[in-house]
Amino acid sequence: MSEVTLLVLDAEPPPRLGRLTGRARVIHADEASLAKQLPDADVLLVWDFTSHAVRRAWPGDGPRPRWVHTASAGVDHVLCPELVASDTVVTNARGIFDQPIAEYVAALVLAMAKDLPRTWDLQREREWHHRETQRVAGTRACVVGSGPIGRAIERTLKALGVRTALVGRTPRTGIHGPEDLDRLIARADWVVCAAPLTDETRGMFDERRFGVMQPSARFINVGRGALVVEKDLAQALSKRWLAGAALDVFEHEPLPPDSPLWDAPGLLVSPHMSGDTVGWRDDLGAQFVELFERWEAGRPLLNVVDKKRGYVPGR
Amino acid sequence: MSEVTLLVLDAEPPPRLGRLTGRARVIHADEASLAKQLPDADVLLVWDFTSHAVRRAWPGDGPRPRWVHTASAGVDHVLCPELVASDTVVTNARGIFDQPIAEYVAALVLAMAKDLPRTWDLQREREWHHRETQRVAGTRACVVGSGPIGRAIERTLKALGVRTALVGRTPRTGIHGPEDLDRLIARADWVVCAAPLTDETRGMFDERRFGVMQPSARFINVGRGALVVEKDLAQALSKRWLAGAALDVFEHEPLPPDSPLWDAPGLLVSPHMSGDTVGWRDDLGAQFVELFERWEAGRPLLNVVDKKRGYVPGR
Repeated sequence: MSEVTLLVLDAEPPPRLGRLTGRARVIHADEASLAKQLPDADVLLVWDFTSHAVRRAWPGDGPRPRWVHTASAGVDHVLCPELVASDTVVTNARGIFDQPIAEYVAALVLAMAKDLPRTWDLQREREWHHRETQRVAGTRACVVGSGPIGRAIERTLKALGVRTALVGRTPRTGIHGPEDLDRLIARADWVVCAAPLTDETRGMFDERRFGVMQPSARFINVGRGALVVEKDLAQALSKRWLAGAALDVFEHEPLPPDSPLWDAPGLLVSPHMSGDTVGWRDDLGAQFVELFERWEAGRPLLNVVDKKRGYVPGR
Repeated sequence: MSEVTLLVLDAEPPPRLGRLTGRARVIHADEASLAKQLPDADVLLVWDFTSHAVRRAWPGDGPRPRWVHTASAGVDHVLCPELVASDTVVTNARGIFDQPIAEYVAALVLAMAKDLPRTWDLQREREWHHRETQRVAGTRACVVGSGPIGRAIERTLKALGVRTALVGRTPRTGIHGPEDLDRLIARADWVVCAAPLTDETRGMFDERRFGVMQPSARFINVGRGALVVEKDLAQALSKRWLAGAALDVFEHEPLPPDSPLWDAPGLLVSPHMSGDTVGWRDDLGAQFVELFERWEAGRPLLNVVDKKRGYVPGR
C-alpha cells in the first residue's frame, strides 16, 4: 500500500499527529490553497472547523479524498451537495463535546435561575441588594436535539432535578418527535437548542416559536447560530416575550462588534466556547488518530455522518 | 390552658400566622422593645434572623420564653450564655434552605469553572474572546459542615461528577473529622464552607488555611461571615494563593459600601441570598406553624438545637 496523503485544513495550534509519522504524508492547506490540494489527498482533516472552505473547494474537478474528518460535532460547514452525492465518507468528533457542553448548559441554567449576572452588576456598583431567586429542581426543560450532546444535557439537567424532555427528528423511546415541539416549549422553563444545522432545522427558532414560550422561560442555544432567527430573538427579548436567553453560537462568528446582540436585553453572549474545556484540542487530535488507525487497518470507521440527514444517526 | 403569648421579633414582610388565630396572642417587638417584652412571652419567633437583638436582650431579669424559634439555619445570632444555660428550647429552620443553597453552590462552582464572570465582562466590551474552560466532573470538592445543608451540597456536587468529601465535627460514616480538614483542602479544587458559627469554627478559614489550598482552588462561603478571616482571604486572593472565591455571607451585613471586599481580585460578592428562593418566607412561616402545633399539643419539637454545640445535631 502506497503511503497515505493526509491533508490538514489548518488552524492554530495544529493537531498533534506524531503517531502517524511514517504512516501518512501530512500536507497542510489554508482556505486559499485547499481547492488546489484536494486532488492530492486521500484523507482530509478539517482541523479548522470554523472554516467553510470545504464547501467552496469541493465542487471543483478532479479526484477527491475518500474520507473527510471534521474536528467538530456539527458538519454543516463541510457538507455541500457534491460531497453528499459522492462516496466519500464523512466523520465527526462525536463524543468529545458532550459532557463539556452539558456542564456549560447547566452553568447557564443555574446562573440565570440564581440571577448571577445581576448580582455581579450590583457588585460592581458596591450595592447590597438582596433578591429572591429560583429553584432549579422541579422546573421543566425542553432540549431540542437528541444526539449525544442533547442526551448529555438531558442527563445533567435531570441530575439537578429538572424535568427534562428531549426532542429529536425521529420519535423513539424517551425522545419526542418534532410534532411535540411546540407543546413542549410552551410549558418549558428552559428551552435548550442543541440540534444539528440542516435544511429542516435552519431558522427553527423564529418569531412564532418565541411567541409560544412562557414569559418566564429562558432560551439557550449551543447548537449552531443559524438555528435561530437572531433578529426575532432580539425582538422577543425586547418585547419581554421571554425572560432571558444565552447564545454561544451565532450566524456570523466572531459576532461583529456592531451587532445589536451584544446588548440585547436579557441576552448572555459567549464566544462559541461551550464545549471547549482544557485539553479539548488534544482530545480531538487523539480521536482523529484513533479513527485514522481504524481506516488504515480497513476496519469500519466510527462517527460516520449520514450525509443526507446531516448528522451521525444515533440509537 | 391559658392563651399562649407569641412574641415575634419582626421583619418585613411579617410571617403569615393566620392559622394561629384564637390559639395564640401574637405580639410584635422590634430590636428596641424586645428586652421589655421578653418577660410577657411564652414563645419567641425570631423572624428577623439578621438581628442580634436576642443575644443582647436575653441576659436581663425576669421570666423568659420557654421556646425560641429562629427562621434561619444558623443560630449564632440567638445564642448567648444565659440562653444556653437556661432550660428554654431553641429550634431552627432546618430543612428549608438545604436544596436552594446546594443549587446556589453548584451555580457558583459551574460559573467559576466556565469563567462566566469574565465572559460577561467581555460581552460588555463587545469583545469576542474564546477561552478554554474547566470540566467540573472529576474535580475535587471539600465541603466543610456536615449538617443538612452541607450534605445537600455534597449530593448536588456529586450529581455533577465532582468527587466530594464532607468534613464535620465528629467523624462518622461518610464524614471526615476536623483532623482531615487540612489534608482535604490541600488537594481540593473547591472548598465550600457551610459550617455553623461556633466558638470552634469562628475564623477557621484564615491565612494558614488559605495558604494550604492549591493555587487553582476556589473558596466558597455560604455559612456565616465570621467563619472566614476576611482580610486574610482578600490578601490570599491578591497574592494569588488561590484562583478565586465567592462569599455570600460577611462578618458585617450588609457589606458596607467602602469594604475592600467589593473589588478584591477574583472575589464574587452576593448579598446573603443563597438559600432564599421564591416562596422561602412562606416556607419559613409554615414550618413555624407546624412546630407551634406540635408544641401546643405537647408533642416533641423538631429541629431542636444543641445549645452547647450551637447547631442541631444530625445523623
